[in-house]
Amino acid sequence: MNYPNGIKKGSISTNNNKEIDYKNRGMTLEGELNDSNLYYQETEKAFIYKKPTPIKITKVDYPSRDKAVIKEAFFTIPSTTDYNGLYKGKYIDFEAKETKSKTAFSLSNIHPHQIKHLENINKNGGISFLIVRFTVLNETYLLTTNDFLQFIKEEDRKSIPHSYFKEKAYLLKDQYQPRIDYLKVVDQLIGGK
Amino acid sequence: MNYPNGIKKGSISTNNNKEIDYKNRGMTLEGELNDSNLYYQETEKAFIYKKPTPIKITKVDYPSRDKAVIKEAFFTIPSTTDYNGLYKGKYIDFEAKETKSKTAFSLSNIHPHQIKHLENINKNGGISFLIVRFTVLNETYLLTTNDFLQFIKEEDRKSIPHSYFKEKAYLLKDQYQPRIDYLKVVDQLIGGK
Repeated sequence: MNYPNGIKKGSISTNNNKEIDYKNRGMTLEGELNDSNLYYQETEKAFIYKKPTPIKITKVDYPSRDKAVIKEAFFTIPSTTDYNGLYKGKYIDFEAKETKSKTAFSLSNIHPHQIKHLENINKNGGISFLIVRFTVLNETYLLTTNDFLQFIKEEDRKSIPHSYFKEKAYLLKDQYQPRIDYLKVVDQLIGGK
Repeated sequence: MNYPNGIKKGSISTNNNKEIDYKNRGMTLEGELNDSNLYYQETEKAFIYKKPTPIKITKVDYPSRDKAVIKEAFFTIPSTTDYNGLYKGKYIDFEAKETKSKTAFSLSNIHPHQIKHLENINKNGGISFLIVRFTVLNETYLLTTNDFLQFIKEEDRKSIPHSYFKEKAYLLKDQYQPRIDYLKVVDQLIGGK
């Protein structure tokens, strides 16, 4: 079927809309997590959001009284993780990353102050973890902060091998709705505490 | 005393630095809250951060391979509140606003989806509230989401009178360190639950 103005079904980015096209395969991890979080919000199961990208604004124009246009800005290094929120009265906090490698996840993906942040959350009664997708293998894992920190502490390596994820992390299967049901794993983490 | 290069003591914005100039009076509410949150983080009391300002990026230049410069972007309406984090195992979430009015706080300061967000957090085991500063009166209040929602429900007004804050909200006094010790009120809220 042809849509007006050459718009093809599923070709519009819908992350910021209420209507989600679940048929849109090949989404990024971020897109799938945003859709999953939207589903959790709409079903009032959890209130977890991606934080805006941190930038440093250096030039703003005001073409009219109410309107501001940023004319120069730079991306800055985030001091915390990308996602946080509330689930079953618990504080949830995580970072999500994709890797093209088939064999390992490079630690250069996570900044030192993000590691410190995950550790602080873990120590102070929050639930924190990493979600890592091996895009070529089409495998997505949830690795708890405890297991992440243990690797860093014990191993003198610059990347976490895929085998460590297979052994320690939780495999998150792609599904219909929500796309990535990571709260199912969080339920296990809460139950096991 | 004169500093090199004409820099005057207390003239440098230190919000993003570790070193805080507590003598810098006349800070904005945001500056004081950022300082207070930094103090809470450094003393490992709480991990509460201001979210980056949400923007929509429409043009990015790459002057070199590793460098990206945002050349056009627009401010967008936030879907949640500005501050959230973790304190004593609890999820904390609030919005902070200044008003120049001496008599009332206009409800136009808070977007409808922010009200809905505060309500969701409140209903699901988080601690949520507003921090409102009447700059001319030099008074800063913490108003719980319950009291905020009650006003909206019962009153058909476009602003909350100052008297309602005096009656229902907690006055937050300016002090040395942290500048605004709003977690003291949170302790009362947790204790009273």
